[in-house]
Amino acid sequence: MRNLKITVQYDGARYHGWQRQGDLPTIQKIIEEAVFTITRQESHVASSGRTDAGVHALGQVANFVTASKLPLRNLLRGMNGLLPEDIKIVDIAEVPPEFHARFSARGKTYLYKIFNSPVPSVFHRNYSWYIYEELDVEKMAEAARFLNGRHDFTCFCAAGHETKTYEREVMRAEFSREGGLIIFRIESNGFLKYMVRNIVGTLSYVGKGKITPECFRDIIEARDRTVAGPTAPPQGLFLEKVTY
Amino acid sequence: MRNLKITVQYDGARYHGWQRQGDLPTIQKIIEEAVFTITRQESHVASSGRTDAGVHALGQVANFVTASKLPLRNLLRGMNGLLPEDIKIVDIAEVPPEFHARFSARGKTYLYKIFNSPVPSVFHRNYSWYIYEELDVEKMAEAARFLNGRHDFTCFCAAGHETKTYEREVMRAEFSREGGLIIFRIESNGFLKYMVRNIVGTLSYVGKGKITPECFRDIIEARDRTVAGPTAPPQGLFLEKVTY
Repeated sequence: MRNLKITVQYDGARYHGWQRQGDLPTIQKIIEEAVFTITRQESHVASSGRTDAGVHALGQVANFVTASKLPLRNLLRGMNGLLPEDIKIVDIAEVPPEFHARFSARGKTYLYKIFNSPVPSVFHRNYSWYIYEELDVEKMAEAARFLNGRHDFTCFCAAGHETKTYEREVMRAEFSREGGLIIFRIESNGFLKYMVRNIVGTLSYVGKGKITPECFRDIIEARDRTVAGPTAPPQGLFLEKVTY
Repeated sequence: MRNLKITVQYDGARYHGWQRQGDLPTIQKIIEEAVFTITRQESHVASSGRTDAGVHALGQVANFVTASKLPLRNLLRGMNGLLPEDIKIVDIAEVPPEFHARFSARGKTYLYKIFNSPVPSVFHRNYSWYIYEELDVEKMAEAARFLNGRHDFTCFCAAGHETKTYEREVMRAEFSREGGLIIFRIESNGFLKYMVRNIVGTLSYVGKGKITPECFRDIIEARDRTVAGPTAPPQGLFLEKVTY
């Protein structure tokens, strides 16, 4: 048996997220079907974590165990030939038996793209959150600095999400610009449900001048879901990479 | 009456090109309908030139004459509110009565994007030509240099296309790279039907080593359509800008 690690790129628009949900179209279901067709064996394909409906991935990581002896190159090309054009495996590698895409992960990086301009963009429409009002990115970056370090992020966690601890460590939270695109990049040892989208929704309030960067810090410290801003829409969010 | 110049961005995937063709969905038809709804008058919207089915635009230019007295800002927002999300007007300006988007144009710049990698890209799939085999971009750039200057481009013109002269002057023809993307940018005082796509198709032969850069020059000099390479697919082509 071989334990195979795959790196997956997908456009989340047509899918109900990563995780299998009966017969609904999900990334996991479609990849497991491709693995089955190529290897003639059922395999559970475990990812580094679920992504929500509509969320994209540049470098989601998953692994599966298979008895197939096919060369990796043939597996990669065979699966990509079967997969739809909005899901592709960009890398495949054999890893030690103890490797698990979720439990071995040390951290993840997400990107969130906002398109900020008086006129919406035709080419970014499916891959960003369009905001008409001019955002103060300096202020947003100032607020984002308060995310760095270890914090209880209850305030940014979706209601009803149960977890042992709401503490996470943020290693990076920064903004960059590319024309009308504002790109927020955040790296952490783990993310709570809707955490990035709730952070970006609240940062958009800072950008619009509705709240100050200091108020953003107070929201974190309040550990109260009800004081944070709106949840940013899924199509701006990309799982960029998983670190092991 | 005011003569209004609009700069238009569109994703060509769903359209039969710019030009009106009865009831078929075309960019011109949809923009003329939006102009009619906002101004309550029929206007002919003339572009700098047609783009083919499936071809995109970052900065197509068009103009129309209207008696509407609406402020430009309101016209822009009103039309963008009516237009589908894959067609947007990014700029509007009043121009002198003699301005005509097509006849006043001095030149145009097109981009053609090739995605060149062993694995196709999910995010570039609708906006590039995917080529699996590794292309020699140095050689392609060397060949492209022969395009510069004034030439008879009969060899790259679609069969059956009638025009007074096949001579055009190319001011720029160059390659750049962004990760797996190879970007070809060409500026000319005018383009023949399918010219950019036929150039790129033939340059792909250079990149694959099927023909040499010198052979590419000989193809230009032969003025013979039958010796050029294939027509590259429309989804990699973008009308970047029109110069006046």
